[in-house]
Formats: sequence, C-alpha cells, structure tokens
Amino acid sequence: MPTTIIKRPPPHGGVLVNRVERNAYRAQRMAAGAPRLELRPTLDRRTGLPIRNVYREIVSIAYGFFSPLDGFMTRNEVERVLAERRLLSEWVFPFPIIFDVSEEDLQRLGVREGDRILLTLRGRPLAVLDIEEIWRFDPIDIATRTFGTPEKNPEVVRVPFDHKHPGYNIYASMTGIALAGKVTIINEPRFREPYDRFWYPPEASRREFERRGWRTVIAHQTRNVPHLGHEMLMKSAAFAGDIEPCHGILVNAIIGAKRLGDFTDEAILEGHEAINLYGYISPKRHMVNFTLWDMRYGNPLESLLHGIVRQNLGCTHHMFGRDHAAVGDYYDPYATQILWSRGIPSYGLNEPPHETDYGLRIRPVNMGEFWYCPKCGEIAYSANCAHEKERQRFSGSFIRGLIIEGIEPPPIIFRPEVYQIIVKWWRAFGYPYVNSRYLKTKEEQGEFELGPMEVPGA
Amino acid sequence: MPTTIIKRPPPHGGVLVNRVERNAYRAQRMAAGAPRLELRPTLDRRTGLPIRNVYREIVSIAYGFFSPLDGFMTRNEVERVLAERRLLSEWVFPFPIIFDVSEEDLQRLGVREGDRILLTLRGRPLAVLDIEEIWRFDPIDIATRTFGTPEKNPEVVRVPFDHKHPGYNIYASMTGIALAGKVTIINEPRFREPYDRFWYPPEASRREFERRGWRTVIAHQTRNVPHLGHEMLMKSAAFAGDIEPCHGILVNAIIGAKRLGDFTDEAILEGHEAINLYGYISPKRHMVNFTLWDMRYGNPLESLLHGIVRQNLGCTHHMFGRDHAAVGDYYDPYATQILWSRGIPSYGLNEPPHETDYGLRIRPVNMGEFWYCPKCGEIAYSANCAHEKERQRFSGSFIRGLIIEGIEPPPIIFRPEVYQIIVKWWRAFGYPYVNSRYLKTKEEQGEFELGPMEVPGA
Repeated sequence: MPTTIIKRPPPHGGVLVNRVERNAYRAQRMAAGAPRLELRPTLDRRTGLPIRNVYREIVSIAYGFFSPLDGFMTRNEVERVLAERRLLSEWVFPFPIIFDVSEEDLQRLGVREGDRILLTLRGRPLAVLDIEEIWRFDPIDIATRTFGTPEKNPEVVRVPFDHKHPGYNIYASMTGIALAGKVTIINEPRFREPYDRFWYPPEASRREFERRGWRTVIAHQTRNVPHLGHEMLMKSAAFAGDIEPCHGILVNAIIGAKRLGDFTDEAILEGHEAINLYGYISPKRHMVNFTLWDMRYGNPLESLLHGIVRQNLGCTHHMFGRDHAAVGDYYDPYATQILWSRGIPSYGLNEPPHETDYGLRIRPVNMGEFWYCPKCGEIAYSANCAHEKERQRFSGSFIRGLIIEGIEPPPIIFRPEVYQIIVKWWRAFGYPYVNSRYLKTKEEQGEFELGPMEVPGA
Repeated sequence: MPTTIIKRPPPHGGVLVNRVERNAYRAQRMAAGAPRLELRPTLDRRTGLPIRNVYREIVSIAYGFFSPLDGFMTRNEVERVLAERRLLSEWVFPFPIIFDVSEEDLQRLGVREGDRILLTLRGRPLAVLDIEEIWRFDPIDIATRTFGTPEKNPEVVRVPFDHKHPGYNIYASMTGIALAGKVTIINEPRFREPYDRFWYPPEASRREFERRGWRTVIAHQTRNVPHLGHEMLMKSAAFAGDIEPCHGILVNAIIGAKRLGDFTDEAILEGHEAINLYGYISPKRHMVNFTLWDMRYGNPLESLLHGIVRQNLGCTHHMFGRDHAAVGDYYDPYATQILWSRGIPSYGLNEPPHETDYGLRIRPVNMGEFWYCPKCGEIAYSANCAHEKERQRFSGSFIRGLIIEGIEPPPIIFRPEVYQIIVKWWRAFGYPYVNSRYLKTKEEQGEFELGPMEVPGA
C-alpha cells in the first residue's frame, strides 16, 4: 500500500550545498594571496541604474538555497540549462547563473582558469571564487534564450521580451565575460535589522520545521505586504497537505532588486510577520524568512527556482497563484500552473517538474484567484463564488492610491496591524513605497554587514 | 516517478453492486410464488417508537452504496465484522448489517434456508431476499460488540454505550432472529419531491462527476442545514486535492431515522442546495445527493461507512471534522481522525482504512474546527486563528433558540437564502424542527412511493 503521508523532501539534488567556511583561520588561509575583486551591481545598459547585485547569488549558492548548484555556471552548463532546464548533473534548474566581470576587471585581475579570486563587498572580504572557466557570451542572446519567444515557446510566452522586462534586462545588461566556478563564503554576513530575525537558510529552516513539529509545510512566494487576498491565498492553499492540512505555512520573501513603487523589503517582511504576531494565522503555524535573489520575473521559470529554493528550505508544498512572479503581459497568466500541471516541452520540460527524473520533490498547489465578494461577505475563491456582478478584485493601483493619500485601507484590504507596519516604514523612509532615495540607501547598505577580516596579500 | 494526480477510485471491493431488476417481466418472475413479508420499522424496546427502517438498507445495498456488500449478513460474516471490521471477502466494513424478523413472522413465513421471500412496503412489492441462513443472536451482545466499550476500545470509546445511543439502541432493539442473504429490488422506488432531484445512486453519481469533468471530488457528510461553519468547512477542506484543489464538492446527506429537534430531511437537502443555487459555492463545483441509512452514530465506525459510500459514489477525498457522526460523549471527539490517521487496533484496524489491504481508496482530509472570530472578521480555522478571547463557537442550541423564537439568525450564521429554506419547510410542517408529527408523517410516507405491481401468488 502506498502511504498518503508526505515526508519532508530531501534537498534538490540530494544534499544541501554548504559552502560557508566558518573557521576563521581556514577562511583566511583560503583567501590568502588571491587577487581581490570588489563586487559591483550590474547596471542597466540604458539608464545606468543598478538592477542586480551578484553578492545575493553568492550568498544563496553558498548557503544551499540553490542546491545542488554550488557555483557559477560554465558555458556548457548554461547551454544545458537553456536547452533543457537541467544542470549537467541532470537536476532540473531554470536559469543561467552567471558571474560576469568587466573586460577591465579581468585584465586587472590577470587570472586564468584554476586561479582563485577574493570577492569583496564594500571593501570587505565576502567569498572566494575558484575559477573553473573564463568564457564569453552575447548578453542579448542569453537573455533571449533564457526567457524564450512567442514563436519558440508558444505554450506560455505571449509577447517578446525586451528591456522593460527586469529579468531580461539583467541578462541583457551583463558584460559578456563570465567567470565560472565554485564559490565559498569566508566571512559570514551579519544581517541587519529586521533581516536578522528572518534569516533561516536551508539548514536552519529545516531544523526549525523539525523543532516546530511541522511535517508538511506549504511555501508562499511574496514580494508584497500581504493584503487579505494574499492572506486568504495562504490560508486556503494550506488546506492542501496529506491526511490533514499542512502543518506549517512558510512565507519566503524574495529580497533583492527593487522597482520603483514596490513595497520596501522591511515592510514586506514585517507585514507578513504581523499576520502571525497578531494571530490571523497562529505563529504556531506560520513563519517568515527570506531568500536573497534579484527576481528574474520568469513566471514559470521563476516558479521552478522557487520550487527548488523552498524544497531546499524543507517545504513539502508550494502554492502557485495567477501571474506568479510575473510582470507585464509577457507570459500567460497561468504559465506557472501550465508548467506544474503538464510541463512546458518548449523549455525542455516534457513533464511537470515534480514528476520528472532528477526533478523536484516539492508538490505544486495550483490556485485560482481570490476577490472580495460583498454577497459572500468574505474574500472569496474563484471556483466557489459565482457572484459575477458583485465581486471586486484586489487592485494594486487602488490600494496604492489610498495609501499615498494617507487613507488607511479598510480592514477588508489590510489588517490594521499590517497597515501599521507600512506606516512604520513610511516614517522611517519618508515614503510608503520604494523611491529613488530608498534605492540609493539600499544599494549603499545592502541587507547585511561584513565584519573586518585580515587577508594576507599575494 | 509516482504521479501526484489522483484518479477516481474504483468502487470498494472493485465492482459496484447493482441488484436492481428493471425488467418488469423478469422482476415479476423473480417474485412469483414467494411468501410475502411486510417491512416494518424496528421499534425501540423501551418506548415502542420506530427507530429504524430496514427498507433503507435494502435500497442502499441494492443500488451499490454499500458495495461490495450485496445482502444481509450471515452469522459468520457478522462475527468477522465484529472481530476485524472486514467482510468474509476481506474488504473493510464497519457494521453488522442484519435483516431481523420476529418469531411470529418467521413461523408464519414457514421458510427455510434456500427459500426466497418477497419484501413489501406499505403493501407493495419492493425486493426479494434469497435466504442463505436463518440465525439467532443476542441483540444486546451484538449492540455492545458493534460499538465496543471503554475497556476494550480505549483508543476512542470514553463512556459505555447504552440505550440513549441511537445506534446501540437500533441493534439492541432487534428481534434476535436474522435472515441472511442477497436482496434484489424488483420494483424501483419513485422518490417524491424534493428527494427525487437528489437521487444519484453510485452509478449515476459517477456518471454525473464524469459529465461535470470532476476528477477529484471531496465528500461532505451532513445531517444539518448548513450554517457558515459547515460552508467554510466544505470550502476549506476542498482545497485538498492533488496538484490543484478538488474539482467538486459532494454533499451526501444521510437520510433516515430522525431525532426530535433535528432539522427535517427536506430542509437539509434544500438548505445545502441553496448554497450552490445562490452562488456561495458555484453549482459548477457543488452538488447534493443522499444515501438512505438510519445513522448508527458510530463516529469512527460511521466514518468508515461514509468512506465506503462516498468512494462508491466516486469521491476521491472525504472531509472529517470534530465529532464526526457523533452523539453524546461516548467517543473521543477526534475518534474519526484517530482512525484515519493511525487506525484503531482494538477494532481490528491496525492501519488507517485507506492504507490497508482490501481497504478504501478514498483519502481522508482530517480537519480541525471553525468558529466565528470577530477579530479575524471571518469564520476562522482553529489552526489559524489565535484570538482565544474573541472566538465564538457555533452553538447548536443558540441557533435553535433563535429560530424557534422566529428571529432570523444573522448572516454570519445562516445565508439568508438558506434560512428561507428553513422557513419554507417550517411553513409546510408547522415547526422548524423534527417533532412527533413530522416523525409520524415521515414514518407513514417514507421518501419514496412504489408503483403497483402484480405478483402471482404461490
């Protein structure tokens, strides 16, 4: 008899990557003599504004969020990913993960394959990179092949990608010179408030689930302060599980590059936390953590990365709604659910990612929409509520309008305590949403600090 | 790779029992010459009031609701059921299903094993019974062993069963003389309004699911007009499923013996129907049907019968809440969930019924409680809402009090359209709940009529 009991899945690829050297002496030895490279943001080709910070990828790789990926990809690995969305080891993986350097930096470093370099952030050592390959690429070509085209990917792509798409723009703005190889963190990030209390990389997250007695955990993707539609999505999808609803709900916020008008990362994390602190979803059942990553907005591809990250964090289920990790009209609104219900052959995924060999073990929970229905008197689910005339969709621009005017949205939109979090960070930053000042501060400070570390030079 | 896609399960035991002879000539031939026995209610030993009508069991057996059971049990079969809750064919089954006759009737019939008798209801032919065995039993012994005792069944039984327990009382009030054998309906019931439009026996129910494109269907047990707690239980549990929420929600009402103060069967069926007619759960996703059965209130045992019936109806999932099919404090409030999460060895069920050989294929969805929380502003789920001070449990007696006083309960208790159904049947019966007059009418009329049918005598 097959059992209906679902167990915590192994990490993607079988073993959690852990490339963090915590022993100070060994860390110092590892970096000794390596040429230094200061990590700088990728700048938008057109505007010159920062759109990606590779340090986030370094941290996510080294702490195992992207297991089994343990470094930056070689040309062959990228080609394999683009052809079949698999690593050379066969394990499913959606995106090229590329460490690009400028021609200038490459010349200055004077390194060759087999060399090690020391990566610094704001002047302080963060990690070392062992160069396996130095290779060149056409950024536009990689960008186009990463996301696809309506012709080549007719199952899901509706409109050609262009520089207005932030993910496309990240790849298109790369330098075209890549250093491939494993990375090792040698100086652990010290997350600042409020990030510090939400820092549960995979090993810690799995330990925490164990401690809480959560056998089944459903992941919720967020880059928003939660309104009641989000809350109801979480609560509803969590009724998936096995013989009983999921024991835990994990909100895993993606923390990284922001767009003007986004909610601030601080408000996102604390806004979700308020849901449990104020008992709307008991803190016994709900927790918040985050992953550092500059979102590629790849809808189905992004959902695949989300699946990998949350499986590594120890989740058994992942909820996917409409327009998952989407921006604009590039993708079919249900592209992610197409992936997780029948696969997307044109991306090389002939089956759903959790039903293919070397695929994921996390299970999709593909959800419809939630709207407010005054006739139902509740946040209603699209498959249930048949009141076509009465239903009122959550409108981001309407909510934005209320907030900017200083009007507290009604409790059917935001829990009062969640709104107070928006107000708290509004006071701190002078504006309720991401603006250019916030972007500048964020760029200067990041999410963490690095302690001083002496590294003997060459 | 195992697939996460759940398919409609086969009937329990593999094949749907269908013992309904629709060909009038053959039906007449089958009954010709058989001695007649008028089906009468089982009367409470103490009060003389009717507490069970075996015709309901005949109909449920013949239409396959209880598949693979195809007749009334022999002594050996009953002993096997009491020892291990399995039929002689190994398939799991919870209750002795016994056709008992009075000494007087037995003498008058003058039948022996191998004979056939014609069973009539209100004087008209309904079915034939082919007598395989005539056996005697001690009703109190069967009643006690059916439900168990706190000593023998410590996992779930809290208080000794007695005549105040309606299920115990049914067995304890039997005559002690049993006719075992297969039954065949020879004159199809013609259900009266409103039962007729809810009559979907297993074959028809499965066909209807197919027509609606429902791959996954979750069953809801009811003997109530649905208040919002029931509605929210249905909507929430239905988020179980496989890669997406259940396609359909089946409300399967148990129609049979009533207790004073119950809602009337008519109001129960139409009250649930109102939920979909008025769009609270789209009629595309929600349907109502019924099973004839005089509830035994066997909590975990009853849930097992419910699982069998709803699997036969084509459901993939069954929701189980607190106090499932319970009355009084005889059982642990979560006895049903104990059964479906780890089994009840003292009943002979060492594993959950869906994880044992010859067990069920329907999957349990074990649910907590729902209450109204003014702080959440919604019908909240026990694992989510942490507002201990604010929560307000649904109180049956409070609701009853409101209704009897003629006060329309607030919309947070009953949907207005559901309340209107209560009012409709209140007008028809002169009282909103089952009273002795309703019981009398119900006893006289039943749920269906039988057409006239000539059967040649012996």
